[in-house]
Amino acid sequence: MRLSRYFLPVLKETPSEAQIVSHRLMLRAGMIKQASAGIYSWLPLGYKVLRRIEQIVHEEQQRVGHIPMLMPTLQSADLWRESGRYDAYGPEMLRIRDRQDRDMLYGPTNEELITDIFRSHVGSYKDLPLTLYHIQWKFRDEIRPRFGVMRGREFLMKDGYNFDLTKEDALHAYNRHLVSYLRTYERMGLQAIPMRADSGPIGGDDTHEFLVLAETGESEVFYDSEITDLKFGDREIDHDDHAACAAVLEEFTSRYARTDETHDEALFSQIPEERRRSARGIEVGQIFYFGTKYSEPMGATVQGPDGKPVPVHMGSHGIGVSRLLGAIIEASHDERGIIWPEGVTPFHCGIVNLKQGDAEADAACDALYRSLRTVGLDPLYDDTKGGAGAKFATMDLIGLPWRITVGPRGLKNGVVELTSRRTGESEEMSPEQAVERVAQVYAAIH
Amino acid sequence: MRLSRYFLPVLKETPSEAQIVSHRLMLRAGMIKQASAGIYSWLPLGYKVLRRIEQIVHEEQQRVGHIPMLMPTLQSADLWRESGRYDAYGPEMLRIRDRQDRDMLYGPTNEELITDIFRSHVGSYKDLPLTLYHIQWKFRDEIRPRFGVMRGREFLMKDGYNFDLTKEDALHAYNRHLVSYLRTYERMGLQAIPMRADSGPIGGDDTHEFLVLAETGESEVFYDSEITDLKFGDREIDHDDHAACAAVLEEFTSRYARTDETHDEALFSQIPEERRRSARGIEVGQIFYFGTKYSEPMGATVQGPDGKPVPVHMGSHGIGVSRLLGAIIEASHDERGIIWPEGVTPFHCGIVNLKQGDAEADAACDALYRSLRTVGLDPLYDDTKGGAGAKFATMDLIGLPWRITVGPRGLKNGVVELTSRRTGESEEMSPEQAVERVAQVYAAIH
Repeated sequence: MRLSRYFLPVLKETPSEAQIVSHRLMLRAGMIKQASAGIYSWLPLGYKVLRRIEQIVHEEQQRVGHIPMLMPTLQSADLWRESGRYDAYGPEMLRIRDRQDRDMLYGPTNEELITDIFRSHVGSYKDLPLTLYHIQWKFRDEIRPRFGVMRGREFLMKDGYNFDLTKEDALHAYNRHLVSYLRTYERMGLQAIPMRADSGPIGGDDTHEFLVLAETGESEVFYDSEITDLKFGDREIDHDDHAACAAVLEEFTSRYARTDETHDEALFSQIPEERRRSARGIEVGQIFYFGTKYSEPMGATVQGPDGKPVPVHMGSHGIGVSRLLGAIIEASHDERGIIWPEGVTPFHCGIVNLKQGDAEADAACDALYRSLRTVGLDPLYDDTKGGAGAKFATMDLIGLPWRITVGPRGLKNGVVELTSRRTGESEEMSPEQAVERVAQVYAAIH
Repeated sequence: MRLSRYFLPVLKETPSEAQIVSHRLMLRAGMIKQASAGIYSWLPLGYKVLRRIEQIVHEEQQRVGHIPMLMPTLQSADLWRESGRYDAYGPEMLRIRDRQDRDMLYGPTNEELITDIFRSHVGSYKDLPLTLYHIQWKFRDEIRPRFGVMRGREFLMKDGYNFDLTKEDALHAYNRHLVSYLRTYERMGLQAIPMRADSGPIGGDDTHEFLVLAETGESEVFYDSEITDLKFGDREIDHDDHAACAAVLEEFTSRYARTDETHDEALFSQIPEERRRSARGIEVGQIFYFGTKYSEPMGATVQGPDGKPVPVHMGSHGIGVSRLLGAIIEASHDERGIIWPEGVTPFHCGIVNLKQGDAEADAACDALYRSLRTVGLDPLYDDTKGGAGAKFATMDLIGLPWRITVGPRGLKNGVVELTSRRTGESEEMSPEQAVERVAQVYAAIH
């Protein structure tokens, strides 16, 4: 993309309404604009990151055999009356009446709707196991929306639902989700720690939240410091292998790690003192096993091997897609702006032309831009008339991991400059080498 | 995808509530399920087609330089009061009150919100031209939703908005959209004819609707039969070239083609009688130029070259993404089911194993499945225990354009059977040849 043809309204001033760094940086980098309280428009740069995150979630869900679909945003109240949650759910549920005076709601989650689909179409245990998921906008009418997309009212979530014949199978689905989530977050450059949590209005006893440690997190968390040394890495786990998935759960959840809702001081104090940590965390996902909580009242049964109807065992599993942008920025920024992990960066690298209008510099930048695109990369070329300082400041603010700087002086020696946003280190090399280096970086993360 | 691990709930019975063929077939093929009146869940097969259509729209929008972003589904009523449309818009607008008693609405369209973004961030004519678009769910509270996704209440739409300094530039944006839309629909295997239409609540004088001819269409249309001979084809148009885009508009709109809203019997009767046609059509898109209708009341001005503020000239441009599934099926089906055009098919081809459980047939199907995926294709492999008749019926119903049939008898001679869904013709060949043939078909449409 050429910046002169893009829409990137960066702000010079720090917006006063933003209390945390990710909110400030998203506004300053022209990623979002508030449309009304807790509701945001995603400007082109923000939308691009949102799509990259969504894409990673899709790929990782499908890698473990989960099937994508899409449920609508508005739901009929009737289904929620069947499960008993219509009255139980508090004022965070946005209740709507349509022109025919029917009670509707903007879905805050989808257990009822997916259970209805299941009971309408699945009749036999032979069709199990089944896990369906979607990525759709949700609404929770927070009384005090704040922190930008971190605690918005309209937000994008991946929610998935497993249907299994037995508790054991459903617990395997739970473990498989944990495996998949660990990999998902690592691809985004995040360490998200599974912690024992409270199940809230979803219900059930088994639940883990995934938390990213950050000073601005809303949850207080307590953990054994050994847990931060764990890495999922690039191990290949057969997602059908119950024992292999259970072993990952065991590895990642056997050490103490809890949110304040489930914190147990007596247990915590048994950890050697030097390993006890309390910190703040941002919740970026949660997995639940809740058995037959929805299938029983809603009559979602299958015919078991003995011919008798059995209510299915279910769980649900969520990733806060839009909130992840905030979490990633909280975890990865400096005083100059955002530092995108390569996995989610909106553009793979920036090109800064130090002398726009100079025939040689323009030609070199054009050639570089084309070469990068030819090898499948998506560069942002600052082809505007701005000065070098302003151009660098914008690139630093929007946080592209790599920048190639092109100027008449370097071109005399046949070189451009490749700069890492994270380390700040620069290196001179030929344009061809720069393309190759950037291509290698991205080839390594796929 | 292996069918045994997919969720494809095809129906044997024809659902009685569906009045038109696309609705019937989408229900029978397990593509959608009604969640409540005029609101649908997209089951995995339907969701896949929806995503393919969405992807084509994204590609074609970005091909002509339009910039993707995303606005929220819920909007504040205040912006609509500024434009004067809050009261003017009828009961089709879903009005919502949140827990703080603020008036909100589920966006039926986004002129106000995009104009607000524009006025907040763009100050100079130098930032023009600019066209932003998004693909987002909309809601129109139809009193009588019907025909499945063709006239739903919650529907997916691409809406784009151009901002230009002058009327001439804005008319170029209009023409460029027309060019882009012609190409977009043809990639989906559709002939969509631009017809002079009425602007309705969007406003403005210049507007064309794109209509697909179909007996079940809701609009009555009148046209010169010569117009159906026009093809956009694979011509390359420079989207910045005003004259080239204007010439395409001229070519595609100079013949008589109008909806009943703008039909002029006197003009129509001047066409030679043998070329006069009246028919029914499905509206799949519309483009508008409405000048300063929103920019003036909402104060969306830029500083012109002379330093004075000028309200920008705008247009908006919509493609009915979810409705297109219905339109495509109306235009492309037979008594056995859907016939997907290659551009939008959910799977590139089907594999039918005539003797699941036979070691040789299973191995041949597995190898074929892997080969197809290796060359970048997305096959659906029916690896269930069903009989040949039922398997063929399902493949015909869900409409994959190509089917490869594998059975013990053919394998003895080293051949499988490649069948075209459209023509019904079958040909025997080696598995390698079948993969190559299918790959060629798809390579040719990209």
